[in-house]
Amino acid sequence: MSSTYGENLKLSIFGQSHGAAIGMTLDGIPAGLPVDEVKLQAFLSRRSPGGKAYTTTRKEADTPEFLAGVVNAYTCGAPIAAIIRNTNTRSGDYAALLDCPRPGHADYTAQVKYKGFQDVAGGGHFSGRLTAPLCIAGGLCKQWLEAMGIHIRAHISVLAGIADEPISPDYTSQTPICVLDDFPVLNKDAGIAMQQAIADAKADCDSVGGIIECIVTGLPAGWGDPMFGGMESRLAAMIYGIPAVKGLDFGVGFTSSYLRGSQNNDAFDIKDGKVVTKTNYAGGILGGITNGMPLVFTAAIKPTPTIFKTQQSISLSKMETCELNIHGRHDPCIVPRAVPVIEAAAAIAIFDAYLSNH
Amino acid sequence: MSSTYGENLKLSIFGQSHGAAIGMTLDGIPAGLPVDEVKLQAFLSRRSPGGKAYTTTRKEADTPEFLAGVVNAYTCGAPIAAIIRNTNTRSGDYAALLDCPRPGHADYTAQVKYKGFQDVAGGGHFSGRLTAPLCIAGGLCKQWLEAMGIHIRAHISVLAGIADEPISPDYTSQTPICVLDDFPVLNKDAGIAMQQAIADAKADCDSVGGIIECIVTGLPAGWGDPMFGGMESRLAAMIYGIPAVKGLDFGVGFTSSYLRGSQNNDAFDIKDGKVVTKTNYAGGILGGITNGMPLVFTAAIKPTPTIFKTQQSISLSKMETCELNIHGRHDPCIVPRAVPVIEAAAAIAIFDAYLSNH
Amino acid sequence: MSSTYGENLKLSIFGQSHGAAIGMTLDGIPAGLPVDEVKLQAFLSRRSPGGKAYTTTRKEADTPEFLAGVVNAYTCGAPIAAIIRNTNTRSGDYAALLDCPRPGHADYTAQVKYKGFQDVAGGGHFSGRLTAPLCIAGGLCKQWLEAMGIHIRAHISVLAGIADEPISPDYTSQTPICVLDDFPVLNKDAGIAMQQAIADAKADCDSVGGIIECIVTGLPAGWGDPMFGGMESRLAAMIYGIPAVKGLDFGVGFTSSYLRGSQNNDAFDIKDGKVVTKTNYAGGILGGITNGMPLVFTAAIKPTPTIFKTQQSISLSKMETCELNIHGRHDPCIVPRAVPVIEAAAAIAIFDAYLSNH
Amino acid sequence: MSSTYGENLKLSIFGQSHGAAIGMTLDGIPAGLPVDEVKLQAFLSRRSPGGKAYTTTRKEADTPEFLAGVVNAYTCGAPIAAIIRNTNTRSGDYAALLDCPRPGHADYTAQVKYKGFQDVAGGGHFSGRLTAPLCIAGGLCKQWLEAMGIHIRAHISVLAGIADEPISPDYTSQTPICVLDDFPVLNKDAGIAMQQAIADAKADCDSVGGIIECIVTGLPAGWGDPMFGGMESRLAAMIYGIPAVKGLDFGVGFTSSYLRGSQNNDAFDIKDGKVVTKTNYAGGILGGITNGMPLVFTAAIKPTPTIFKTQQSISLSKMETCELNIHGRHDPCIVPRAVPVIEAAAAIAIFDAYLSNH
Repeated sequence: MSSTYGENLKLSIFGQSHGAAIGMTLDGIPAGLPVDEVKLQAFLSRRSPGGKAYTTTRKEADTPEFLAGVVNAYTCGAPIAAIIRNTNTRSGDYAALLDCPRPGHADYTAQVKYKGFQDVAGGGHFSGRLTAPLCIAGGLCKQWLEAMGIHIRAHISVLAGIADEPISPDYTSQTPICVLDDFPVLNKDAGIAMQQAIADAKADCDSVGGIIECIVTGLPAGWGDPMFGGMESRLAAMIYGIPAVKGLDFGVGFTSSYLRGSQNNDAFDIKDGKVVTKTNYAGGILGGITNGMPLVFTAAIKPTPTIFKTQQSISLSKMETCELNIHGRHDPCIVPRAVPVIEAAAAIAIFDAYLSNH
Repeated sequence: MSSTYGENLKLSIFGQSHGAAIGMTLDGIPAGLPVDEVKLQAFLSRRSPGGKAYTTTRKEADTPEFLAGVVNAYTCGAPIAAIIRNTNTRSGDYAALLDCPRPGHADYTAQVKYKGFQDVAGGGHFSGRLTAPLCIAGGLCKQWLEAMGIHIRAHISVLAGIADEPISPDYTSQTPICVLDDFPVLNKDAGIAMQQAIADAKADCDSVGGIIECIVTGLPAGWGDPMFGGMESRLAAMIYGIPAVKGLDFGVGFTSSYLRGSQNNDAFDIKDGKVVTKTNYAGGILGGITNGMPLVFTAAIKPTPTIFKTQQSISLSKMETCELNIHGRHDPCIVPRAVPVIEAAAAIAIFDAYLSNH
Repeated sequence: MSSTYGENLKLSIFGQSHGAAIGMTLDGIPAGLPVDEVKLQAFLSRRSPGGKAYTTTRKEADTPEFLAGVVNAYTCGAPIAAIIRNTNTRSGDYAALLDCPRPGHADYTAQVKYKGFQDVAGGGHFSGRLTAPLCIAGGLCKQWLEAMGIHIRAHISVLAGIADEPISPDYTSQTPICVLDDFPVLNKDAGIAMQQAIADAKADCDSVGGIIECIVTGLPAGWGDPMFGGMESRLAAMIYGIPAVKGLDFGVGFTSSYLRGSQNNDAFDIKDGKVVTKTNYAGGILGGITNGMPLVFTAAIKPTPTIFKTQQSISLSKMETCELNIHGRHDPCIVPRAVPVIEAAAAIAIFDAYLSNH
Repeated sequence: MSSTYGENLKLSIFGQSHGAAIGMTLDGIPAGLPVDEVKLQAFLSRRSPGGKAYTTTRKEADTPEFLAGVVNAYTCGAPIAAIIRNTNTRSGDYAALLDCPRPGHADYTAQVKYKGFQDVAGGGHFSGRLTAPLCIAGGLCKQWLEAMGIHIRAHISVLAGIADEPISPDYTSQTPICVLDDFPVLNKDAGIAMQQAIADAKADCDSVGGIIECIVTGLPAGWGDPMFGGMESRLAAMIYGIPAVKGLDFGVGFTSSYLRGSQNNDAFDIKDGKVVTKTNYAGGILGGITNGMPLVFTAAIKPTPTIFKTQQSISLSKMETCELNIHGRHDPCIVPRAVPVIEAAAAIAIFDAYLSNH
């Protein structure tokens, strides 16, 4: 486990926020799959801070360098390896955190586990920056799934309590959800309100969280396995690997627990000669196995733990409380940038399930 | 994957609802751990239908037979194997479901995946009955964790919309949560209302779902790993293996997405010379690693899909819609019986994390 | 690892020699594969002692009971579980070995590892009896491979220094190699001499070992993976799991190290429109991947460590040397009975490689 | 599987001979282990061609760049990643091999498996060059084992039929075996004769193979697990991942099959208050578990398949035989350079077993 994932594919994510490079290896991928680096870069750019008002001021081109596994723009059957060099690092900002851990962050647990040997700079291996190599692997899997007609699209469902429109059960658009200049919402007014909420939080030296909804269309019935090999288990093991995810449900999820069986069961129907369900409360999964309807899930993202407000922490050396004031570069909200990360994570888990079934 | 789980322990669950036996093998367990079969039986009985008004009329003693791995009431280092014979089966009830799948159940997806070779009787390998061997494995892990001072307790947080009291952040009782004759709630009135809701649903030939909250006390800081080896990923991969779970969150979970960072961050503090947090919104996990506070999560259980109301389904042979009327023995609500299953699942995932860290 | 094997299939072997039962679970097998129990029993009988002069006097029918995963003689997609009850046990024979370990056996290492909690009766989990459930799993895989035209046949290549004929490079017979009443050799005179050598060893209260050669015909080119996923690694991880195997090589194996490249390289050729090699020094594997030629390997089996001759051992309680005299039932030679075990092991590893490639 | 190895550590090897870089990721390593890069470089240099008469003329510094997992010369608990840039490549040499595969090499099997998408340059992922990142991982594990008093030393046991002295059962030297200027033999005369045999093979446009013996001293009793988790299975799965290994045995290995039990059993004894065996025919392993005696194994290395002699091959496009003449840079013997690779492989497998037992 640890930073390795997968049943038939083997994904290994490595790197620390301020180390030489971050990267990934992806083994078990069939030979002959096309690798479109331009399309991949466009996908990675959706995750990049890009100088937007609501993001960190850290600037990184985040252009992957492929070291292995790709020859003439096709996978060659050997493990794929790609790295992104860290260039814009300021390690000096972090030394104090070894003694005085940030509330809500992994500083303290890393200290207990690694006994001071952890890389504290920029959050080290716990940094959100590690989602960049996840997006390399996921961006590739997404391309390969798209070639099979399987599309993965996510949007900000809720941010700071402001709700976007729900995804229509018939949503099949193949482009990223994005009505508002790189801000992944379906409803423009909701998006503007969300951006204002982020700006407000930033002005207050605070942060906000949100919920991301993801829909996967075009999945055939029959993928996934019983019990621990079910699509929910596969996706959950991957998605909870993304820092800041604290909740995940499938279909109507938590809401299903308030319904009666007669309400929650999706009646089977025939449409255009194919088996469908009239509703999709199950989110496209029955018994862990896809049923041919869109796979739908939502993930809760906690507010960025690193805030500039004064907080109570402790001095580990003195074992007494202290005040913590953090300086540096931190997003007041990571939800918009987490949207492609959720898509990437879903793509990896689903492509792995595909490999298990073929 | 599939019906196999674990990093350092290897759990394999087998069996079909109406086959010869259900069972489990559990490899990777150190030698010399005590096995208290009386205590295990008491734990398994919490999952048994036991003739209660709100459960199935199927009666099974569910007494495990240990075939291997236990000598003189201690683990011997070899893989543990235990089975439960299926005795009270009525396979005749299920043949029709091969053509006309139950909404909300795995009948259709099993048909697509296994092409008619699946064991349809009683839901086969997709039956909730498979949670009995999960409770054997989990009941053992629970005993071993308790010997380390780690206690896992769950209760019905919500059932049919009726809420129990929340678990107090200081909850450390070591006995099962159960004020009301085997009905795992903290508040007696809430429990009575829940039981009435189950009776009402049964009278309506319908079913209800609910939410289970689980708390793990006594966990030391430092267990778990970054990314996919995080406690959330480990627990989620296991808990989503339980049939009918459709949602899972940790700490305040989905609620955290509505909070600001300054509200959601748990301030560090010193108490009795130990590092604690003043609140526990994070549910005891930071960066995937335990922080020494109680680990708290909630799981959403959908209403039993098998209901006696007339439902719309389809005939797979005729590819046309049809009416489905189900007879047989089915719980109008599995939530009470799922409570020990959630505890068992948590115990397995946590004991595996323990083994990885020792 | 431990007693669990496999990449796409997951095999778990459990049981102790004198416990309630031995058995196996086999997960990841596609639905719809036929299970011929009569044929399986015939295969298992090749491993049974069967009252032959050269084997143990322990008598066990070794008839598997299938508990799960097989419905109407076909796999149903759920994990397969099968057990064999231990009936003819005499546990009283073994208590003394806890203090005075048998040379060449796992008594001492089990004591160090399990600190006295190991099941010492009959060798516990280290007993050769555990190869019976391996033969259940392997016997099934063998059936499924045979249905694809892939045949696995082994024979005693050398026993007590007496050599059988080598398998001809063109060997394609589909029946077990066995000219001499259940004694798996190609040359009758060699077989008679081997049986005499076993009888001589028995008369001397001693034991003998041997070498088993195995050939797999009908394998298509292209199975296996680079490096640790190569056919040699896959087969070796499985075959070294068989007690008493101390050597393994592929093709001409150790001999290849004495040859020049021009001698050892198998020249490519075209035969009947197919790519073949003129010789098969590589044993059908190049770069870890099958090349379409017969896969050939040999495994060295050490002489049974449990002998009736007086041996020097030690008393662990007194930490001083002592004389050890063993009574009971032990084969003076396990090589003939190991032949089907080697076939079973090869079948499991090859079927797993098949699943990885399909 | 594939190019990923390990139970508690997760090693992933990537790269192609003439790609941008080769490298490895190593996950699951505890924090706080020292990384001595100077010592590592010295170890890697033993594998480097280094302009010796008997090796390839390809020159590569083979200096690893650590990208992640190491901070201030200590492991930080995050996955370790290191790469070696490929600089001295001549890809033009290989295009013809896509149609006309080299006998004894993976050209043909890669073509069948990857359908022309494989990286053919320099043997791609099948190149012996991939043993360089294996030596990075193994060199680190070796350092960490040495700090526990566990030493791994290998030498050329046989080369082109010329035998070195056997390693004495009391061998405990902690420096590399190397009497003759970087040529790993115990006996100088044997080494000179071996070097002459390599020179002769080279003059004949041919190649030679050999056998490597490896001894691991200082291992405590009790490491390893039963069956597939045994030390033999763990080591074999790793060592057969090294290109050109075609045989492997433990202790007296194949020879044990010629002995009687009374000869092959190692009598237990007490020496300096510790349990030892009077002989070590078992090679330090009983029942898959270390017994405290030196772990000894031998691996057979086939002669380099790429030779400059004219060979018969086939044209895959024309499906007819053809003559193959190879030009380029190839070792007439890889055995001397394989010695540290065998040590590295052993170190990885043993360190993984250590992690499983701690």
